[in-house]
This record gives sequence, structure tokens and C-alpha cells, in this order.
Amino acid sequence: MFDVLIDRSAAEPAYRQLYRRISDAVLDGTLAEGMRLPSARALASQLGLARGTVEVAYAQLASEGYIQGRGAAGTFVAAVDVSPAPSAPGVAPVASWVPWAARPVTAAGLPMPFQMGLPALDAFPRKLWSRLAARQAHALSPLSLVNLDPAGIAPLRQAIARYLAVARGIAVAPEQVIVTAGFQGALGLVTRLLEVAGRPVWVEEPGYFLGHAGLAAAGARIVPVPVDGDGLDVAAGSALAPDARLALVSPSHQSPLGMALSLPRRLQLLDWAAARDGWIVEDDYDSEFRYVGRPLPALKSLDRAGRVLYVGTFSKTLFPALRLGYLVAPPHLTPRAVDLTGLLGPLPAADAQATVAAFLAEGHFGRHVRRMRQLYAVRRAALAAELAKYFATDRILLGAGGMQILLRLDDGADDLAAVAACREAGLAPSPLSRAYAGPAKRQGLLLSFTNLAPEQAPATVQRLARALSMALRP
Amino acid sequence: MFDVLIDRSAAEPAYRQLYRRISDAVLDGTLAEGMRLPSARALASQLGLARGTVEVAYAQLASEGYIQGRGAAGTFVAAVDVSPAPSAPGVAPVASWVPWAARPVTAAGLPMPFQMGLPALDAFPRKLWSRLAARQAHALSPLSLVNLDPAGIAPLRQAIARYLAVARGIAVAPEQVIVTAGFQGALGLVTRLLEVAGRPVWVEEPGYFLGHAGLAAAGARIVPVPVDGDGLDVAAGSALAPDARLALVSPSHQSPLGMALSLPRRLQLLDWAAARDGWIVEDDYDSEFRYVGRPLPALKSLDRAGRVLYVGTFSKTLFPALRLGYLVAPPHLTPRAVDLTGLLGPLPAADAQATVAAFLAEGHFGRHVRRMRQLYAVRRAALAAELAKYFATDRILLGAGGMQILLRLDDGADDLAAVAACREAGLAPSPLSRAYAGPAKRQGLLLSFTNLAPEQAPATVQRLARALSMALRP
Repeated sequence: MFDVLIDRSAAEPAYRQLYRRISDAVLDGTLAEGMRLPSARALASQLGLARGTVEVAYAQLASEGYIQGRGAAGTFVAAVDVSPAPSAPGVAPVASWVPWAARPVTAAGLPMPFQMGLPALDAFPRKLWSRLAARQAHALSPLSLVNLDPAGIAPLRQAIARYLAVARGIAVAPEQVIVTAGFQGALGLVTRLLEVAGRPVWVEEPGYFLGHAGLAAAGARIVPVPVDGDGLDVAAGSALAPDARLALVSPSHQSPLGMALSLPRRLQLLDWAAARDGWIVEDDYDSEFRYVGRPLPALKSLDRAGRVLYVGTFSKTLFPALRLGYLVAPPHLTPRAVDLTGLLGPLPAADAQATVAAFLAEGHFGRHVRRMRQLYAVRRAALAAELAKYFATDRILLGAGGMQILLRLDDGADDLAAVAACREAGLAPSPLSRAYAGPAKRQGLLLSFTNLAPEQAPATVQRLARALSMALRP
Repeated sequence: MFDVLIDRSAAEPAYRQLYRRISDAVLDGTLAEGMRLPSARALASQLGLARGTVEVAYAQLASEGYIQGRGAAGTFVAAVDVSPAPSAPGVAPVASWVPWAARPVTAAGLPMPFQMGLPALDAFPRKLWSRLAARQAHALSPLSLVNLDPAGIAPLRQAIARYLAVARGIAVAPEQVIVTAGFQGALGLVTRLLEVAGRPVWVEEPGYFLGHAGLAAAGARIVPVPVDGDGLDVAAGSALAPDARLALVSPSHQSPLGMALSLPRRLQLLDWAAARDGWIVEDDYDSEFRYVGRPLPALKSLDRAGRVLYVGTFSKTLFPALRLGYLVAPPHLTPRAVDLTGLLGPLPAADAQATVAAFLAEGHFGRHVRRMRQLYAVRRAALAAELAKYFATDRILLGAGGMQILLRLDDGADDLAAVAACREAGLAPSPLSRAYAGPAKRQGLLLSFTNLAPEQAPATVQRLARALSMALRP
């Protein structure tokens, strides 16, 4: 009856596989309300897992309401509740759809086509990177074993400040640059610095899932503010929550819809912040990739009043496992931001910082970004051309930049069902509906083109079209 | 009149040097209330610094009340207030004594003798480490560019779980181990997980400065609980704040006094947590180094009720710039801890994780720790023998383990003045008084022996004794 297969060679940890299999079984009724589950000990022995592994899976299932412990009587399948998951005792809930739990790989061990948030893995200069990393390791001096500044190593902060001046039109002192553990580390630092817990914050609707979920996890009250063709609707935000603590925006390339925040809206947003003592968090996540027209300078470059906290990341330009990003704070917030990162993290490892610093300072970064921009332009065009063979062109939204194409579905369609069907077909698009903090107004699929070689595009899009025609048949 | 020298070769950033020099000058009256400071632009040009550097220093000085901007009239020295520093508008204050701003180096570029928190830099196997790091870099596969689990890479979590079982008597599943950015990253994660803001927390008095400051920065209400010869006085804590959210303790080797938490106290603490829904955060920071008797198992090994969050770090056993540590959470808190680290950091870089994983899995870590234990035993004995030539033996507190010796001063002495005199003499002990969250009950100097070779001990201790006899002369 209780036949759970755990794939030990999979990248997904065993406890998450177990969690998913049991939660799926509860949702689809294979495990019915009131059924008794084996004890953690018995299941562990049956599956050849450590008992702790099963306990972790059970604890998560219990905390999300799938199962219920009844003391000595055992553990039972609970009545499934589709309202938001209750949390562990005494701790607040976190959005439960976490993308990293769902980063599926192909039989060859590569990410499935269309996965979001990844640079072209086949085009990363791994040999060059290894050489620089090895050189940093060999150059290790006794003093370099001791890290002196919680804000990051000086060469990296200088290199980032130079890059921001040249590429993004932002004039900052290296001392204002704080190296973080990627976007998440920067967002975590911002939530502490601005003490968002219990306060309203504006997020773009739709917007970046990890931004929404991160702010919610920090205890902020999420105020979804609609976006239109000019980006965030500042007037709507002012009407909904005039005294919001911050606005999280992606001005150069709205995530996920792709438009830029227009200049009037930029000025309106800056005015709002100055007038209402609000802060603007600029997520400039993929500004490097723009294929049409000239790149816009960062919103931060217009920030006369010192209300913009700028967040950049190397996850999209180098690689996600590097987990390095940075926060540029206005001068009067910088000392406290440095103290906070020194006291409570993130504090990235010095080795990784040194390798990135060398990559930037020696000009490799600029060359790599230019090369990727060309490669992505080709892959984007190839995917768009194939999509146009199966779908109406007004459904295919390219935007002027970014790393994905949006395929709009009918408003009445269910993009989660579409994603599930695609997954069966070995494809991993992301559902547009999950980009909404509130009820989804649009359905669609986000299709990353960064890892799709042009020669693979025809067969891959054919598979996509077939999966969708099955899933969305009325 | 305004003669500020900035040492560009110093490890301390220019803005912090400037900040310190101006704040010192305000405190000692060189810059008197009402004096006008040069504009940031003028001072930057005078000192050959970027204007932003001066602005950052001015902003910090203004936020702490040393100086005051008066619009177009300029910037003026403020009336100095000795009450706690006011914070930047809208953000809470952080303890302002930050140890990393004060990690002085010798002319040879090495840390000054007696500096706390550093392993033996001369004895770290740098060649071996470089080889492993280079090998990890060369082995980079496309998939390893994508990090799959926010809790850390699987080989490292497995290696840590194995190490904890063998060395610390803790049986945990690898899934319960979350890799963090050192102690600070783990503490930051704990403060989010247990939502400490506004809640009372027990800290050891005296205790670990970064623990006190980190919890305070996260908004917790610090309740200093006295320690005696058996460690934390649990009864006193229960009387002061019975419903504290957590107790931060260092059971195997109290920081900074060095005694172990006795077994009756351990059980009492666990009982308190179970009865009052409290949590115990075990900082097991240097349990590897014990020179007398057998090491005690971790408090976590007695944790039947699942109330202990265990924090370990590689900063003391490998090197601080690595910034890697870990949190072991009870199973039912683990899923939320993983979600939080995925959403808000810390998320350490995969490269650094892979190198540590190889270092552990190939047995280097165990050998290195054994070798350091022997080396430290010799250095500790040499320092103690030299100290005994100048100071009464009842002032020299060795403890059974750790990385420093405590030299007690008279209760009426001023250990900050003593530290200042030592710094003049090229020595960097730490003041015991700073380990108190409340008023200091004891004065003393913490003397790390990890970087003091036995042949340097005589001359170094002679310098120490001379500096102290001048500073503490009645």
C-alpha cells in the first residue's frame, strides 16, 4: 500500500522527495483522510533511509497540515485544507511554493528546457573561471585568512563601484557597496535595515516570486500594486498604502512582464519616497541583457534624495551557485547596514569574492556579458520563431530584454495544469499565475531561452505545443 | 587646523579611519562644539579621497550625534552627548563597538599579539587547502553552477553530520544541518526563525560580544543572566525572565570565562526550555580545543525534547575569512529554517562549501584539529609560564580549553585604559568589561595564545607587563 520510491541519485534531497510524494498522494486522494501512516522508524527501515530523514519530511507535512500526529496512536492523514498552510508552532508561515524544490533535471543531469533564472550553462567560461579560482587559492596569504571587513573585500567593492559607474550610470563610493549572498542576502539585509516586520510594502503585481516571498517571510505586509505598460502604477500604490515602508521594483526590465519603468513613473516614485519617508528597493537583476534599443540607466542614477537601495546580483550574469550579489545603500544608511551584516550575516566567503573581483578587474566580466547578450539574442529569436509556428503572435511577449519569453494563455486557462503537463513532457516552464501575490489576473508560461540552443528549439517547441494542446483542451 | 592622516595601506577602510579620527577629536575636545567642518568636497580634495568616502564618514558621524548639518551654512561639531548613540532616522541603534573595525596589524602585516578569535595563522595548511580549492574549481560541472539546495551542498551536510556524531555525540540527519555564513549567519537565521524582535532573551553575563550585539541588532530584549563556576545560573534566568524566547549559551567552554556548564545545570536548562516553551541556542564555538580532562558531549546530545538549536563554525578551526558555519535545528523547525535561508539568506557560495566538504571527507579536518590542539597546548603553557613571572597566579585563568587566557585585573582597574596602553605597545588583548551586556563586574584582559609562538612569549609578555604597569599605576 505504501510504496514510495526515493531516487538517491537525484539532486533533490531524500526528505523533500518523500515530502512531495506523500503530499501529492494526500492531494490526489491516494492517501485518504484518517489513514494511518507507518511510524518514522518503520518507514525509514522500509525505504532504507535515516530515521531523521523521515522525521523531517513528516514534520514538514504536519506543519503544512497534510498529516497529524496523535501521540501514541500514531500519525494520520489529515483533512486537507486548501487555505494557506498553517505554520509550525510559534513561527509565521512562509509561502510554500519554493522554486529550488522544483528545479528538475533531465536524464543527462542538465536542467530541463525553459527553466527560469539560469544563465547559459553551456557557455560559461569554466576553464577561465577555474584558473582564476585556483590562482586565488594559491595566492592565499596568512592575513587573507582573516577577513577584515564584513561589507566585503576591498578589491571587489571597488570593482563593483567601477562597473556601476560605467554600465549603470550610478556614481557611488566603494564604501557604499556591501557584498551579499546574492539577491536573497541583499533582500534579507534590507528587511533588517528598514525593519519591515508588520509594515506595508509595495510589490509589483505580478512580480518576482522570491521578492514577494522574502518580504512576507520577514513579516512585511505585502501590498500588491498593479503594473501596466509603463511599469508600476505609482498612483495606485499611493492610494492603496501611501505610507508603505518600501517599494520593491524592477525598473529596467519588469519581472516577469518585461517592460521598463517609464521616466515619468520613475520620477513619480522618487517623489513618493521623498514625500512619504518611503524607500525604494531597485532590483536590477538582468539589466545587462537588453536586445532592443539602448539600456536605460538605473533608477538609482536619478536618486537625488538618497531614497534608493540598489540590489545587483551575479547569479544571472555568472552563475547561481556563486551566490554573490551586492547592496548599494544611501550613505547615511551604510554604516548601519555594514554593522548588521557583520552581526547577523550574510558575510560571503572571501575566496568567492576574490575570484569575482579578479574576473571583473581583468575585464573578463565585460567580455562575458557582451558574449552572452549576443548568444541570448540568437536563442531568443530562435525560440520566438518556433513559438510563432504554433501560437498567435499576440500571445508571444518578448519584451526588450531579459532571459525569458512570456507565452500568454487564455485568462480562463489553468497555467499550473499546463506546467504539470509540460513537466511530464520533460519541460520546465514557470507559471505566470505564481508571480501574483494576490489572485492571478493572467495565465501564462514563462519560457527561459538561455539554455535552449537554436537547433533544439524546433523539437522542444513542438513538444511544448503538444503538451499544451493536451492539457488545455476544453 | 584640520590635519587628518589617512593610512591607505591599512586594512581599515578610509571612511572608518576618518570617522574614528573625527569622533576622537570631538570627544577629546580638539574639535569643539560649534566649529565648522570643511565641506565633504573640500576635505576629500585635501585628503586625496573620493568625495563619497568623506560623505559616508560624515553621515555616520551625524547619525551618531558627533556633527550636525545645517543646510547651506555647512556642517558643525555638535554638542557631544554621552548617552547611547541616536540612530539614523527610522532605524534602531546597533552596539557601536564592532570588533572587526579594530583588528590591528603589525608592521609586517600580521595580526598583533593576543588578538582574539583567530586560529594559528602560521600553522594553517595553506598548500593543502589551495590544492583542494583548485581541484574543486577544476571539477566545476555545468550542473554545479546551479545550486540546488539553499541549506547547503549535500556532501558538506553529510560530512558535518558525521563529524557531529563522532566528535560531539550528536545524532542528526544530514537534512537537519543547514550551512550558514559562520556564526553570524547562523545567529541571523535563528533570530528570524524564532522571531526574537521585542522578546526577552537570556545571554550569559559576561558572554560573547557578537552574540549579545547580534541579538540586540535583531531587536531582542537582552536579559543578562549571571554565570558562576557551573556556568549559566538557570535559576537566576528563570527569576529574571521566565518566559524568555531563547537562551544563548556556550556550554562546553563558556565565552569568555572558560568553565563548562555542569550536568545539573544542563538538565535544569533543558527542563526550563521544555516547561516554558523556550529555546536553547548552543554556541559550540571552540569545543575542539580542550587540554585538560575529556571533552564534554554537546548539550544538544541531551536534547530529548527538541529544544536545542546547535551552532557550529569553521572560523576557529579553519579560518575566519572562510565564513562558514552551520545550524542544526530540531526536525520540526528544519523546513522553515531551510525556507528562510532560501528566501532571505545567508546562502554561502558553493565553491567554499565544496572545499570544506573535501577537507572533512578526506580526513584532513580531524588531523588538522588534533595538530592544532597539540600546538595550542604548547602555546598556552608557554604564555601561562611567562605570565606567572609578572602576575599573581590567582589572576591567571586558564580554563580547561579555549584559545585564550584571562588575566584578571583589580575590580577597580579600567581594562579599556589597559587595552589602549597595550595597543600603543603593539599588543591587542581584548577587554573583559566589553563582554558584559550590563555594567561590568570584573575587569581583565583576554589574551589569545593561538598566534604566539613560545619563543616570542617572553619578550611579548614583558611588553605587556610594562604597558600594564604604566597604564594601571594608581
